[in-house]
Amino acid sequence: MLPSHKGFRFTLITVNAEIVAVGSELLTPFRQDTNSLFLTARLNELGVEVIYKTIVGDRPDHLLEACRQAFTRAEIIIFSGGLGPTEDDLTRECVAEALGLELRRDHEMVTALYTRAANMRVKLAENNIKQADYIAGAEVLKNPRGTAPGQWLETEYEGQKRLIMLLPGPPHEMEGVFTEHCIPRLEAALPEVHLATCELKIAMVPESAADLRAAKHYKNFPGVETTILAKPGEVQLHLKARAASREEAEARLDKLAVLLEEEFAEEIFSSGGESMEQIVGYFLQMRGATLAVAESCTGGLLGERITSVPGSSRYFLGGALVYSDQLKMEFCGVPPLLLKSDGAVSRTVAAALAEGIRQRCKSSLGIGITGVAGPGGGTEEKPVGLVYIALADGKHTEVVERRFPGDRERIRWFASQLALEMLRRKLR
Amino acid sequence: MLPSHKGFRFTLITVNAEIVAVGSELLTPFRQDTNSLFLTARLNELGVEVIYKTIVGDRPDHLLEACRQAFTRAEIIIFSGGLGPTEDDLTRECVAEALGLELRRDHEMVTALYTRAANMRVKLAENNIKQADYIAGAEVLKNPRGTAPGQWLETEYEGQKRLIMLLPGPPHEMEGVFTEHCIPRLEAALPEVHLATCELKIAMVPESAADLRAAKHYKNFPGVETTILAKPGEVQLHLKARAASREEAEARLDKLAVLLEEEFAEEIFSSGGESMEQIVGYFLQMRGATLAVAESCTGGLLGERITSVPGSSRYFLGGALVYSDQLKMEFCGVPPLLLKSDGAVSRTVAAALAEGIRQRCKSSLGIGITGVAGPGGGTEEKPVGLVYIALADGKHTEVVERRFPGDRERIRWFASQLALEMLRRKLR
Repeated sequence: MLPSHKGFRFTLITVNAEIVAVGSELLTPFRQDTNSLFLTARLNELGVEVIYKTIVGDRPDHLLEACRQAFTRAEIIIFSGGLGPTEDDLTRECVAEALGLELRRDHEMVTALYTRAANMRVKLAENNIKQADYIAGAEVLKNPRGTAPGQWLETEYEGQKRLIMLLPGPPHEMEGVFTEHCIPRLEAALPEVHLATCELKIAMVPESAADLRAAKHYKNFPGVETTILAKPGEVQLHLKARAASREEAEARLDKLAVLLEEEFAEEIFSSGGESMEQIVGYFLQMRGATLAVAESCTGGLLGERITSVPGSSRYFLGGALVYSDQLKMEFCGVPPLLLKSDGAVSRTVAAALAEGIRQRCKSSLGIGITGVAGPGGGTEEKPVGLVYIALADGKHTEVVERRFPGDRERIRWFASQLALEMLRRKLR
Repeated sequence: MLPSHKGFRFTLITVNAEIVAVGSELLTPFRQDTNSLFLTARLNELGVEVIYKTIVGDRPDHLLEACRQAFTRAEIIIFSGGLGPTEDDLTRECVAEALGLELRRDHEMVTALYTRAANMRVKLAENNIKQADYIAGAEVLKNPRGTAPGQWLETEYEGQKRLIMLLPGPPHEMEGVFTEHCIPRLEAALPEVHLATCELKIAMVPESAADLRAAKHYKNFPGVETTILAKPGEVQLHLKARAASREEAEARLDKLAVLLEEEFAEEIFSSGGESMEQIVGYFLQMRGATLAVAESCTGGLLGERITSVPGSSRYFLGGALVYSDQLKMEFCGVPPLLLKSDGAVSRTVAAALAEGIRQRCKSSLGIGITGVAGPGGGTEEKPVGLVYIALADGKHTEVVERRFPGDRERIRWFASQLALEMLRRKLR
C-alpha cells in the first residue's frame, strides 16, 4: 500500500541534504542541536553532502517557512524533533501542510497507545493520539525507545523529487530510528558510493605547523577531502575519498595517507580513531608494564583520563594527588630539603615524585607532574603555565620542562596530554 | 559620511534575529557552530529573540540563497565567518550581491595591511586586500584581534528595515567585535528593555521530577520564561523576565523565584551561576576545613573537579588514587581482611577509605569512593553502576550506596557529583 523505497533512485552521484532541527530550546543560549553531527557522519558515508542546517523553534509559521525553504533547496530533508505529544510538537503538521498532503491516523498505533496507557494504569491524554498521525504516503518508522515513531516519505515538491525523513528529537531515539530504518532505505535509494576514510592523530604539534606540513601533500590530491581539527595538544587530519568501488576509494586515499604518515612518522599516535588514553593503555598492556602517577597541578586529571578506558585496572595501579607539599613528602618521599631548595615546581621535585610514586606503588613506571596552573601563584621565575613532567622507570628518570599557554583548564590539559605522549614514546 | 546608527529605531518591542554561521567546516560531522550561543545570550539580554539559525558552507550559490532567505524573514541578521583572505571567504561578496549593493575599498585599511606585511617582512598576497572591502553604506568595525574587520549595516530589503552585522568567525574575534561595536549600536537602535535573570541549580534530582515540581509554579507565571536544563546529577532552572524598567523585570521574576526557592529549599546548591565545585570550595574555605580524597572507580575525577577551581590549594590537600587493592591498604590502611570479607566495592571499604585518607593526610574531612564503573566487572551481587561514597570527619563516617544508570563516563560523573553534594550538605 505504501510506496516501496526500491523504486526511488537519485541519478546524481552527489546528493544534497538539509538537516532541520526543530525545538525552541535549540534557540536558547543553553542548548545546541547535536543530532546533526551524527546525521552528517552517516550521510557522508552514503555519499550525501549536507549543504544547509537550519534550526527553528516550535512556532508553526516559522516551522512552515523552514519546511518550504528546505524542500526548495535540498533533495533529502531530515527533520529531528517536534514529534512528541505536546501542543508545541508540530513537525508532522507543518511538513504535511508545506507539501499539501493530508495527515492520516494509524489505527494500529492508536490501539497500541491506549493499550500502553491501560497497562500503566493511566488515562491516555487526548493530545497523545496525534503521535499516531502520519503524512499521506509516508512509511511509519518504529521507535521502540520512545512513543513517537519516525516517518519516511518519498514525494515531489514543485516538480522535484524529494526524500523526507521525520525523526524524533532525543538523540538515542533519533539514532535508533535512523540506523534501523533510514540507512537501509537510503542505501537502496542512492547510487552506490564507497567512502574510504582515514584519521591521523598527532600530539603536541601546533595546528598551524601541522597544517603547513600537511598542506604541501594534500594540495596535490584534490580528490581527497582533508579536514584539519585541533584541540589542545592534539591535531587530527581527517581524510575522505569517494568512488564507485571500495578499491578505487581506498586507492585514492592511500596515496595521500602514505605521504602524510611519512611526513609525521612517529608523531602520529593513532590512525584508527583511538584516543591517546586508549593507545597508551594498549602499549602498557602489550609491554606488561604497570603505571602509577603523582599529580600536583593536574589534581587527578591524568588519572581520570587513564581510567576513562575500560579495563585500565590491568595496567594502572593508582597513585597520589600531592597538592600540598606535606603530601609530596608523605606519599612520594620527596626530601623536605629539596622542596625547600628547589621549590615544589621544579625539575628535581618532578623527578622525585615520579620515582617516589613508582617505588611506593611497586609499578614499573611512575609519572610525576608539578606546575603552576594559575591564574594566581605565578612569579617571574616560575610563571603561570610552567610545568615539569617526569617519567621514571627505575633506571632512568626523564624530565621535561614546558611553558604552556592559556587558562587553568588548558594548561592542565596540555600537561596531562604531554605526560601521555611521553609514556607513548617510551613504550612504542 | 556613514549613516549614524542613532537614526535607526525599531518600533517593535520584540525584535527577531537570524544568525547565519558561514563555513564548510561547520557542515562536517566534526565541527559545530558555537558562536550562536554567545550571540543568542547577548541578543536575549537586549530583548531580541533568535528565531532561526542557519549554517551554510562556503559555496557562493548556497551562501547567496541563505542571505536572501535571512533578509526576508528576520529584522536583525548576523553573519559569522567567511571574512578572511582566502578564496573561500565570500560573506562580504554574497551579502552585497543579495542586497544589490556595491563593495567599496577602505584605502586606509589597504595601507594598514601593506604596512603590517612590510613590518613582518612578507609580501602581501593579493587576496589579502579584499579584507579592506566593505559594503556600500556599512560601518567598518575594528577587529584588533585579527585582520578581517566586522561590518555594521542599516539598510532595507524589499522595503523592510534590516540591521545586518558581519562578524569574523574565530570566537574570540567575534566576541570582541560584537561586544565592543555591536552591543552599543544595538542598545541605541533598540527600544530599552531590561532583562532580569535567575539560575537555580539543583543536584541529584532527576529532571522529570524537578520539572514536575517546578511546573506547578512556573505555569502560573506566563510572563517569565522558564527553561529547564539537565546534565548528569544536575538540573538548572533558568528564569528570564523582560520589562521596560529594571524594577519591573525584577519584580516579575522575584515572585516565581521565591516560590521555586521554597519548593526546592536546601536542594538548591547555587542561585548565582556558581558550579558545584565552586560552592563546595567556598563552604570548605568558610568553615576552615581541609579535604582529602581516596578515589577508586572515579580514578581522579573528583580531585580533578575540586582542583579545577583556582585557589583550591587553600582547602584541598590531595589524596590517593587507590585503583588496586594493594594501594587501598598502602595509602588508606584498609584492613586486608575487610577487602577479603566484604570485597573492594562495599560499604565498609568506602568508610575505611574515607577515614584512612583523612588520617593519612591530616585533613578535617575525608572522602572515599569505590564502585563498579563498567562496562565489565559487574556481578549479580555487585552490578555495574553500584557505587559507595563515604564522608568522614573523624567522629562520624557517613556512607551512601547508589546504583547509577548509564555508561562508564556517566556513572563516574554521578559518583563525583554525589560526593560533592554530600560535602555541600555537611558543610552548609
